[in-house]
Amino acid sequence: MDPIKIALEEARAAAGRGEVPVGAVVTDGRGRVLARAGNRTEELRDASAHAEMLALRAAARARGEPRLPGCTLTVTLEPCPMCAQAASFFRIARVVFGAYDPKGGGVDHGARVYAAASCHHVPEVVGGVREGECGALLRTFFAALRRDGANCGAGAA
Amino acid sequence: MDPIKIALEEARAAAGRGEVPVGAVVTDGRGRVLARAGNRTEELRDASAHAEMLALRAAARARGEPRLPGCTLTVTLEPCPMCAQAASFFRIARVVFGAYDPKGGGVDHGARVYAAASCHHVPEVVGGVREGECGALLRTFFAALRRDGANCGAGAA
Repeated sequence: MDPIKIALEEARAAAGRGEVPVGAVVTDGRGRVLARAGNRTEELRDASAHAEMLALRAAARARGEPRLPGCTLTVTLEPCPMCAQAASFFRIARVVFGAYDPKGGGVDHGARVYAAASCHHVPEVVGGVREGECGALLRTFFAALRRDGANCGAGAA
Repeated sequence: MDPIKIALEEARAAAGRGEVPVGAVVTDGRGRVLARAGNRTEELRDASAHAEMLALRAAARARGEPRLPGCTLTVTLEPCPMCAQAASFFRIARVVFGAYDPKGGGVDHGARVYAAASCHHVPEVVGGVREGECGALLRTFFAALRRDGANCGAGAA
């Protein structure tokens, strides 16, 4: 299956658990899936438990090595600075993402982690893959949150 | 005990395990230690297992909450972009660090994560605490690595 489709499945599963719907998958040089994960920050009580971090760590565990050269990280949303830097530390060869994230992204926005001269390993980056589908998932989730918030009298964010 | 002394203990213990000697501790608003950790990237086969990440996640587990408002992260080395962003996600109030890291740091150097307009939560930052002692630990470790490398015929890095 196309990695971005797997990432989308993980994102939908995250939404079903009440988590921000972001999904990620790590594939090796032959396209085999090493690990897949969705966001679990609330469930794990871990603000760092983004889909990318969980997938990278699980892929390294699966390989028994702390680094993943030749591998691709595919994720439904532009990685934040934490996940972008983690992908660099794991020596990921290629980062593919769906929706751009002007508010929280750290690849094409914000801290632009890979643009820093001190970033020792810069993966190839491909953004905007199935952008509409990936972005719609997030918009639907946050629209529902705001609606529920309004219903509870909490007002829109 | 002064948190930076605890972080230094963790850094020394990391060196003893053959890990890059960085140590971190999370304390709450009253100065109580919630969690302490040293770098374990090689042992855990996890390139993201920096001292800060391990301490932040352990502190959140200890509290049973995904965020740590009012808490301080104290670390022997300027946090990298991954750890700096993680501290922000965990809503850490204050980041205190020892040695500055022009090569890998992400607070005062490189991606300067907290300087991005899109960084939603910016902790107070205090750098250079026991800077000499924290830096010496790293210099000694890397000098020994280069020496051992040269002895093995691998040459200096």
